[in-house]
Amino acid sequence: MPTQREIAAFEAGIKLGALYHQFVGSPVSPKTAATLEQAITESISLQPYVRSVDVRIDRQMLEENAFGYRELEGRMIFAEVEIEYRGEKIKARLEYDSGTDYPMMRLL
Amino acid sequence: MPTQREIAAFEAGIKLGALYHQFVGSPVSPKTAATLEQAITESISLQPYVRSVDVRIDRQMLEENAFGYRELEGRMIFAEVEIEYRGEKIKARLEYDSGTDYPMMRLL
Amino acid sequence: MPTQREIAAFEAGIKLGALYHQFVGSPVSPKTAATLEQAITESISLQPYVRSVDVRIDRQMLEENAFGYRELEGRMIFAEVEIEYRGEKIKARLEYDSGTDYPMMRLL
Amino acid sequence: MPTQREIAAFEAGIKLGALYHQFVGSPVSPKTAATLEQAITESISLQPYVRSVDVRIDRQMLEENAFGYRELEGRMIFAEVEIEYRGEKIKARLEYDSGTDYPMMRLL
Repeated sequence: MPTQREIAAFEAGIKLGALYHQFVGSPVSPKTAATLEQAITESISLQPYVRSVDVRIDRQMLEENAFGYRELEGRMIFAEVEIEYRGEKIKARLEYDSGTDYPMMRLL
Repeated sequence: MPTQREIAAFEAGIKLGALYHQFVGSPVSPKTAATLEQAITESISLQPYVRSVDVRIDRQMLEENAFGYRELEGRMIFAEVEIEYRGEKIKARLEYDSGTDYPMMRLL
Repeated sequence: MPTQREIAAFEAGIKLGALYHQFVGSPVSPKTAATLEQAITESISLQPYVRSVDVRIDRQMLEENAFGYRELEGRMIFAEVEIEYRGEKIKARLEYDSGTDYPMMRLL
Repeated sequence: MPTQREIAAFEAGIKLGALYHQFVGSPVSPKTAATLEQAITESISLQPYVRSVDVRIDRQMLEENAFGYRELEGRMIFAEVEIEYRGEKIKARLEYDSGTDYPMMRLL
């Protein structure tokens, strides 16, 4: 039997995996990043056991391509989710790690 | 050699295909649908040769699941894009066809 | 500090969230389901700390639309992932729950 | 009224837009690329009016990250689709253009 904290951690992982793989690939620019952040935040907030979601898209990585925009990549995303499952609260974060060049997800 | 209208039609198809397959699966509810519509509109508007995008999510299809939300399905989306390629303008639409139970895309 | 089992549970959640939101929406039919299952399995198996992935698409839910195919929906997917993080092993499952009409993810 | 060639071009655009935005973000490595290519090919082949689909993932761009894999990016994909709509045949291609650093889609 998993503990309630393990379940909360599992739920946190679901949210970050969902957020990442749903929205990576979306066309985005400095002008549209705020709306996309809000849409991602509201969307993931609907999922079960979510207390809060914070999403920020790195504006400096949004240098434009030849057509004036980019597509959202994992390394551009900073996201934190807080889960509450039966009173147990857990926070997790997605953040680009430049050392490994990897969009790292971890429990806080 | 394709004509300029054929290229405009091709570009319209790209936009509807992108819109559909990028955002289908996103958690959505009546409260978050407007933000998601705006994010989709702004995102697709960034792509080349787009004059306008109009996206509406069918609120009546957003009846809630056991956890109070739904995931965006193709049949919930009405979308129109207008493309302009070298002066040639073409409109295309994504709209659910209840007769065939299919989210139909077509040139207008 | 999270425990190693909590981290394993978190990693399991990431994999199921990724699997779901990456591949839902893919056109699929009874003839192509086996290849798609294999591609999903191999893809998710690449992610960190995965020991095994098992993916099955419900053939009975693949009744064809007017054009002879369907798009992959969450409720069509049965998936199990086994994670090993520093010796701690955790299994998680995605399975459609007909009672709540919800594609349920849970730790086993 | 659109011509039949314009409709064929529109359908070609849908397929490339769908292919791109459905599968970009999928974990992939040199060992799994062939299965993913096959799954994408079979999936897009199901859509209406498709005569053929050819998908190749650039193995040289699959240099591994710190965890031994990559995620599929648009620039890694070469794809050609052939559409037949009421006897009119049209081919379109997705191919990375290094000059503009853009995954270009065009009618052939």
